[in-house]
Amino acid sequence: MTGRVVGVGLGPGDPDLMSVRADRLIRGATTVAYFRKKGRPGRARTAVDGMLHADVTEIAMEYPVTTEIPLDDPAYNDALGSFYEDAAETLRSRVAAGEEIIIPCEGDPFFYGSFMHLYTRLKDRVPVEVVPAITGMSAAWTATGMPITWGDDTLSVVMATLPENVLEARFRDADALVVMKIGRNMEKVRRALKAAQKYNRAWLVECASMAEECVMTLRNAEGREVPYFSIVLVHGQGRRP
Amino acid sequence: MTGRVVGVGLGPGDPDLMSVRADRLIRGATTVAYFRKKGRPGRARTAVDGMLHADVTEIAMEYPVTTEIPLDDPAYNDALGSFYEDAAETLRSRVAAGEEIIIPCEGDPFFYGSFMHLYTRLKDRVPVEVVPAITGMSAAWTATGMPITWGDDTLSVVMATLPENVLEARFRDADALVVMKIGRNMEKVRRALKAAQKYNRAWLVECASMAEECVMTLRNAEGREVPYFSIVLVHGQGRRP
Repeated sequence: MTGRVVGVGLGPGDPDLMSVRADRLIRGATTVAYFRKKGRPGRARTAVDGMLHADVTEIAMEYPVTTEIPLDDPAYNDALGSFYEDAAETLRSRVAAGEEIIIPCEGDPFFYGSFMHLYTRLKDRVPVEVVPAITGMSAAWTATGMPITWGDDTLSVVMATLPENVLEARFRDADALVVMKIGRNMEKVRRALKAAQKYNRAWLVECASMAEECVMTLRNAEGREVPYFSIVLVHGQGRRP
Repeated sequence: MTGRVVGVGLGPGDPDLMSVRADRLIRGATTVAYFRKKGRPGRARTAVDGMLHADVTEIAMEYPVTTEIPLDDPAYNDALGSFYEDAAETLRSRVAAGEEIIIPCEGDPFFYGSFMHLYTRLKDRVPVEVVPAITGMSAAWTATGMPITWGDDTLSVVMATLPENVLEARFRDADALVVMKIGRNMEKVRRALKAAQKYNRAWLVECASMAEECVMTLRNAEGREVPYFSIVLVHGQGRRP
């Protein structure tokens, strides 16, 4: 029995930034499974386009809901919970029959990733390996051409989905700051950054490391509609020789 | 003129976790420059052992001081400042003559890395490219077999070199926590974690992804001498379906 699941972090988007191990696992895969929204090709699947064997077996795991139910409605968690249970069971039975299933994951699998929900349901039942990856935030700060942290700076990574007063407090306390899950939360993030006196030092990076990468100061992006995969950064100003 | 400097992130230590781009740049290098302590082979240099051309030109940049002068003594900053100035000038003149210099950097170059001090002194004078990498903390949380962040968790990355009362406040505020630069600060970190009520959930990862990797709960590591490249983690407990 050699069956197992491997959650393979793809990194920020540029295939050249995948790890050597990820590149080898993706190219050698006999079965891949990936999440996608209904009717979409799936971002993880698109990222490995051209890398897969012609005769690879593909398992698309389609989210039952995305924005139809509000995040704080218990029905949202119920729908997603059943979805992850079913997906885990599908994978488990195939692995039990000896299959190795490669799951390409955007970013780093254990850092705010969907794979985690499969992982917790599979890890005590079948062998699961996880391959870490370059995070989207690393690609984003690299794209700004400025180091994110110096000396004893504390880095805070904050989700834009939090309430505005929480964002403001988090922003105020941070030395260096990364804000993720921006999308429709952009105006709330702007107001909280202003209140925390960090607006004038903030940068916006869209689609870091991808062909569509865009880097600008947040002040120069007023009124701009930003994709979900945007990151706002405020660089640390710690000690340096 | 094709001269340039490339700061190449090597990732956490396992060569299989270098990016495809880093692997290609290191293997193709005609000149490499790297930091090291006097009398040591250098960790970045050791990491690329076996990957370099036999006839590669090597430039070892040796730190003038490490622990002989206390960190808060202005003489420390002065000594390091001159050292970085001299190293930058050496690289600049070689790049001006058309040389491409590859600088292998442990971890991710823009995330608490020494390369940043060269970068700021070179970026307006010669072409400099930076290749991001998997951070040591990504390898560390992957090694624990538990995702670090869930839902809206805020991740705080905190340096153990900070004063104990600052550590305690930072630890208290964090949802998910990464503590770096541990080494001799271990006991201070323990006390601050206890005061912040997070000690019982803390993990210690030594040398993540390297042959010497060690993962244990912090409670099981009492009295243990830990290497500088150790990371303490407290996993987030955010929302999950």
